[in-house]
Amino acid sequence: MNHTHDPKVKSWIESANDPASDFPIQNLPFGVFRSAGTNQPGRIGIAIGDRILDVRECVKNNLLKGISQATADSLSADALNQFMSLGHDSWHTARIAMFQLLESNADNQLRAAARKFLLPMSDAEMLLPAKIGDYTDFYASVHHATNVGKMFRPDQAPLLPNWKHLPVGYHGRASSIVMSGTPVRRPMGQTKADTEALPTFGACKLLDYEMELGWFIGKGSQLGTRLSMNNLQDQIFGMVIVNDWSARDIQKWEYVPLGPFNAKNFATTISPWITTLEALEPYRITGMPRSSDDPPMLPYLSPSNPSAQQWGLNIQVEVWLRSAEMRKRNQSAVLVSRSGFSDMYWTIAQMTVHHTSTGCNLRSGDMLASGTISGASEESRGCLLERTWRGENPLTLPDGTQRKFLQDGDEV
Amino acid sequence: MNHTHDPKVKSWIESANDPASDFPIQNLPFGVFRSAGTNQPGRIGIAIGDRILDVRECVKNNLLKGISQATADSLSADALNQFMSLGHDSWHTARIAMFQLLESNADNQLRAAARKFLLPMSDAEMLLPAKIGDYTDFYASVHHATNVGKMFRPDQAPLLPNWKHLPVGYHGRASSIVMSGTPVRRPMGQTKADTEALPTFGACKLLDYEMELGWFIGKGSQLGTRLSMNNLQDQIFGMVIVNDWSARDIQKWEYVPLGPFNAKNFATTISPWITTLEALEPYRITGMPRSSDDPPMLPYLSPSNPSAQQWGLNIQVEVWLRSAEMRKRNQSAVLVSRSGFSDMYWTIAQMTVHHTSTGCNLRSGDMLASGTISGASEESRGCLLERTWRGENPLTLPDGTQRKFLQDGDEV
Repeated sequence: MNHTHDPKVKSWIESANDPASDFPIQNLPFGVFRSAGTNQPGRIGIAIGDRILDVRECVKNNLLKGISQATADSLSADALNQFMSLGHDSWHTARIAMFQLLESNADNQLRAAARKFLLPMSDAEMLLPAKIGDYTDFYASVHHATNVGKMFRPDQAPLLPNWKHLPVGYHGRASSIVMSGTPVRRPMGQTKADTEALPTFGACKLLDYEMELGWFIGKGSQLGTRLSMNNLQDQIFGMVIVNDWSARDIQKWEYVPLGPFNAKNFATTISPWITTLEALEPYRITGMPRSSDDPPMLPYLSPSNPSAQQWGLNIQVEVWLRSAEMRKRNQSAVLVSRSGFSDMYWTIAQMTVHHTSTGCNLRSGDMLASGTISGASEESRGCLLERTWRGENPLTLPDGTQRKFLQDGDEV
Repeated sequence: MNHTHDPKVKSWIESANDPASDFPIQNLPFGVFRSAGTNQPGRIGIAIGDRILDVRECVKNNLLKGISQATADSLSADALNQFMSLGHDSWHTARIAMFQLLESNADNQLRAAARKFLLPMSDAEMLLPAKIGDYTDFYASVHHATNVGKMFRPDQAPLLPNWKHLPVGYHGRASSIVMSGTPVRRPMGQTKADTEALPTFGACKLLDYEMELGWFIGKGSQLGTRLSMNNLQDQIFGMVIVNDWSARDIQKWEYVPLGPFNAKNFATTISPWITTLEALEPYRITGMPRSSDDPPMLPYLSPSNPSAQQWGLNIQVEVWLRSAEMRKRNQSAVLVSRSGFSDMYWTIAQMTVHHTSTGCNLRSGDMLASGTISGASEESRGCLLERTWRGENPLTLPDGTQRKFLQDGDEV
């Protein structure tokens, strides 16, 4: 085990040592922030406990030991794209330097200097961590795809013939990716009820969340070339949580034959902090095992190198819901979906490699996402469409109301 | 008629007055260029005859009279996004200024100064005219959609139920948009023959072009707001020619249920020069008339203001093909598709407005495209899939070979 993964190591920033903290010294996720209420350009920061370390200031004051000039320059930018483009070795030296700066036995002089560049998270506004050139969303959960198939195409086999042969995906909309906390307006759109002859235009009635994970591209790839399953360590920088807001009634009417469009492009929310693949090293596992019923995988989606097989991620994801009424009553949010990313049929490596299979280029800062993460149980279904089975089994919230789909004022 | 549309006006640049020139003074399209063989940053230019006018130098030397400081600044950038964001009034004053600089009776001193900032097109390398944040492709030709439906879903009505109610579109891939002339590598990909039980991975066998027009977004729109059919003059900057390269065998296998993905994302080619909507003013007509069989249009897709109904464009588009063997024999390219944009069921205004119907934001420099432009006749079908009816009726080229789909070395 690498020293930066050792759970026994503590930080001199006490809040990072709280077992309930999302940001212990073993995490050190990257984000872009500015002082709340200002229009400053973004600055790269690291989350540690309840603080943000201002990385640009650390670079300027030479507190990050051992990093290259290119790494230093990239960490002074207003977005992470340039840093992402440098690849694993740069990410690794930066992680080591930050770890050494923040661990309990850090050099006293460095520690004193770094203290000046810590600000409370509550004083910061988080911005998108990268300029996202393109966003692609996949559909990698076999449970989700099966459930949606049953509902949208009840007269056919739930999984379409291609589903177990390739990670099905589609191009999403980059412009409407927003930071967690950004209010999302219920979309208007065109829908048609099964009982009506003609469509109408009006407010979406079946607004949904989709619980996903996303990953940012590091070095990227050139147009006309393909990535290999055996060599992706420079390509995948790190992971964020994604909520792919979905308008189910709009989707149902519009999605044939070219896929979801307006049903998805009104907003996609991501979490502010990118947890690097290196920080997730202890959580890497083999991907979902195939059963004897599953078809063989084509070689380009199968790592020949055993060390490249650990592309599953043992991560639990949860969705919590709180209505406006619950906020008024001071009731806490309730857990509505909880699932394991290890249940995904396709790994992030397979999705990334497949994306480049025709020679499509990936650029540093592009975001790919998994599609809804659903497991086998009802509680593990990662969207309300599945969770309430299209509204047939509504959830009851602590405020006494029921949810088939999201209501105005709900906080997800 | 605006003076800048008067066909009798000539330029002092003689090549612009050749009736065969694509770039008379009435056109004045915008592009981004650099000196061929260098790595200079791009500069904004205007095509005039066989020359490019270096707009940045004209701005620097104060040759563009009447433009605002913001316009001047935007025209000195390395891409057109900023200029696009300024809206119609800025575009108009810039057009007037350039017209006055280049018309036959231009001021002598200005003309002498401008002469220094003209370079032969052959000395320039054209770059992408804007940083394209997002690219969206529609499916707006009723002839194309009907033909493809017949081939891909022979057991169903060719047009799906939603097709005449909304402009069907999907998010494309921005990273792989390339300048005309860029070699495109035949993609590899996953395909499955109807006669086989399992898919295979290999070179695409059914490589196709798609003849389209694209348009660049000017001012854009804010997330959560919708554009109106009555007020788009700041929103649409100008048009380019688009070739949406398509791998038909990959598309057929992958496209359900989320739409085309790898079949399209390996390359999309655009022409270097953006012809502004203002230059196209004389070619604006009403959109394709609806027949009594067609369903009513929802109000958000119908302009209530008669002056806003001229969103059809009377533009002919053509595809010319030349094989490697034809080049060797010095044979000219042959016309393989020719169609009229006026035959599109949906106008660029309807597509743009529908894109924002759920509140999706458009950003300056985003590109939207029409989908394949096909007419009713065989010759007017805008892709080989339709043109040869999936290879059943191959075309014979002047070199004696046949084309069902594109072959290596073909130039489109």
